[in-house]
Amino acid sequence: MGDGGEQRHRRARGWDVTLFASRDSVTRARLHAVVDKGYEEDATVDPKVVEYLHISEAFEHAAEFDLIHSHYDFMALTYTRLIRTPVLTTIHGFSSPKIMPIYHKYGDGYFVSVSDSDRATGLNYLATVYNGIDLSLYPLQDSGGQDLIFLGRIHPDKGVHLAIEVARLSGMRLIIAGIVQDETYFREQIQPHLDDEKILYIGPVDVKGKNELFARARALLHLNTIPERFGLVLVEANAAGVPVIAMDLGSCREVIKDGETGFLVANVAEAVRVLERILEIDRRACRGRVQQHFSIDTMVKGYERVYSTIFDLEARSRS
Amino acid sequence: MGDGGEQRHRRARGWDVTLFASRDSVTRARLHAVVDKGYEEDATVDPKVVEYLHISEAFEHAAEFDLIHSHYDFMALTYTRLIRTPVLTTIHGFSSPKIMPIYHKYGDGYFVSVSDSDRATGLNYLATVYNGIDLSLYPLQDSGGQDLIFLGRIHPDKGVHLAIEVARLSGMRLIIAGIVQDETYFREQIQPHLDDEKILYIGPVDVKGKNELFARARALLHLNTIPERFGLVLVEANAAGVPVIAMDLGSCREVIKDGETGFLVANVAEAVRVLERILEIDRRACRGRVQQHFSIDTMVKGYERVYSTIFDLEARSRS
Repeated sequence: MGDGGEQRHRRARGWDVTLFASRDSVTRARLHAVVDKGYEEDATVDPKVVEYLHISEAFEHAAEFDLIHSHYDFMALTYTRLIRTPVLTTIHGFSSPKIMPIYHKYGDGYFVSVSDSDRATGLNYLATVYNGIDLSLYPLQDSGGQDLIFLGRIHPDKGVHLAIEVARLSGMRLIIAGIVQDETYFREQIQPHLDDEKILYIGPVDVKGKNELFARARALLHLNTIPERFGLVLVEANAAGVPVIAMDLGSCREVIKDGETGFLVANVAEAVRVLERILEIDRRACRGRVQQHFSIDTMVKGYERVYSTIFDLEARSRS
Repeated sequence: MGDGGEQRHRRARGWDVTLFASRDSVTRARLHAVVDKGYEEDATVDPKVVEYLHISEAFEHAAEFDLIHSHYDFMALTYTRLIRTPVLTTIHGFSSPKIMPIYHKYGDGYFVSVSDSDRATGLNYLATVYNGIDLSLYPLQDSGGQDLIFLGRIHPDKGVHLAIEVARLSGMRLIIAGIVQDETYFREQIQPHLDDEKILYIGPVDVKGKNELFARARALLHLNTIPERFGLVLVEANAAGVPVIAMDLGSCREVIKDGETGFLVANVAEAVRVLERILEIDRRACRGRVQQHFSIDTMVKGYERVYSTIFDLEARSRS
């Protein structure tokens, strides 16, 4: 279970991987599917029904595997005590305090966090394994551009309104890209500032669009208002050599090294102030840090270490 | 899993019963609860979370039981292949065609239908076991009243509008009782006919209210517009000696014996016509049929037969 890139890599490294996912998944692993596509894309199915079908199918085949690596949140945990195969769960975020009773019940399982900051107490974490990106998708842009950029969901959590404030106070242009997740927020706090000149909104962008943005970026602004679990966009920008100015909340300080690959700030005023020093940031150092900590290769090796730990623990408990 | 009355009875007959249900359940069985009350009554919990917690808890204790009798629809089925204890599922109705993929996958399990008519093809049904009622709650009303009554959810499926038509055409009074499930339907097709004299709506009623209704009833009208799975209210009315005029759809003909405990009809005109013969129905025969087929005792014996069948089948498959 994971994205296509990860699976190819793990297969290449000698693992025999079966991916339980929808039939339209792109993977070089052996694909085991019970649903045709994601339920968001298929109105003929009931999400609850295909979720139960999908999860149980994997657990019914448990005996065929040395390990089940689940990315399926609290639901999959409720099947883990009915099988013998060890289950590792990567927690990609806690969506609500209401899901915690299940994590606490199954807290003695095996868990990986996606950042040190996004951890709950009482769970048996074996490691933090950061998400990794394919660096070839985001080539280094040798020289920086003139603009500020924002990339991400248009939602108050992501602090788009704070990025606009920074742009206005610094007199720089800001280009905003991403899907609108909160319509009211967009209409009331973003749209009134758009002027086709200094503050622009260009909608969602794909990899090509991101690279075009990175080419004209002096810095990426990520002034999140709640703790960030793991900001993939910070890593992508850094890979392209773009320094990041991020709010010092959640995992941002694990991704961005203050003064080396960007700056961690506490508020808008600080963000404006560090902009004056942004050209001090070495663009190659930004990419270097991604290569070291946030590449697919680093992620795969991180998981391989966790798998070995689990196999050791299981062998010990049997002997 | 079942209502309190059923559990007491089964315990009384020598079974050792553990009921997995919310902590506020009334039962003489051993209660095993992981949630305090039904999720509809507790805004602090996420229904999906407590559902997963509740179901998996029962299956994690499977080894302690000779049989798990599940009333938890398609969700519980997805855990059945991970345990050795046989699981019997009573299907209390198919809520949507979208749930059928799970029933078909697990169709080789053990199933009970609540009426012969409410069956899906391809499932391994061992029997139909009708729901049973506690007849002491609905004493025989020796002499009938003058009015027509409707009892049930105010919803187009239940044909309240057809009952009103019958009342108008026959010139009889109709008393409607039950919760409003479909507000638009109530406002547009029921409310305009209410006149405090010939067509009355008295809201939801409890057991006492039902008995008061039965006392003044000449007949209960149940002109359902879709196949009835199992109409408990038909049984309750019959228990009190009230004849039932029911649409001949779904399980109605299993519950009502045409011409003996009421009449099965195809439309409003037929319902009006049989009203002229309603006094021919023997009120004691109505109750007698309930005693024979729809009592708790009959239900319990029906399930005991199914349990024996399962134990035999399991023993045979092991030998």
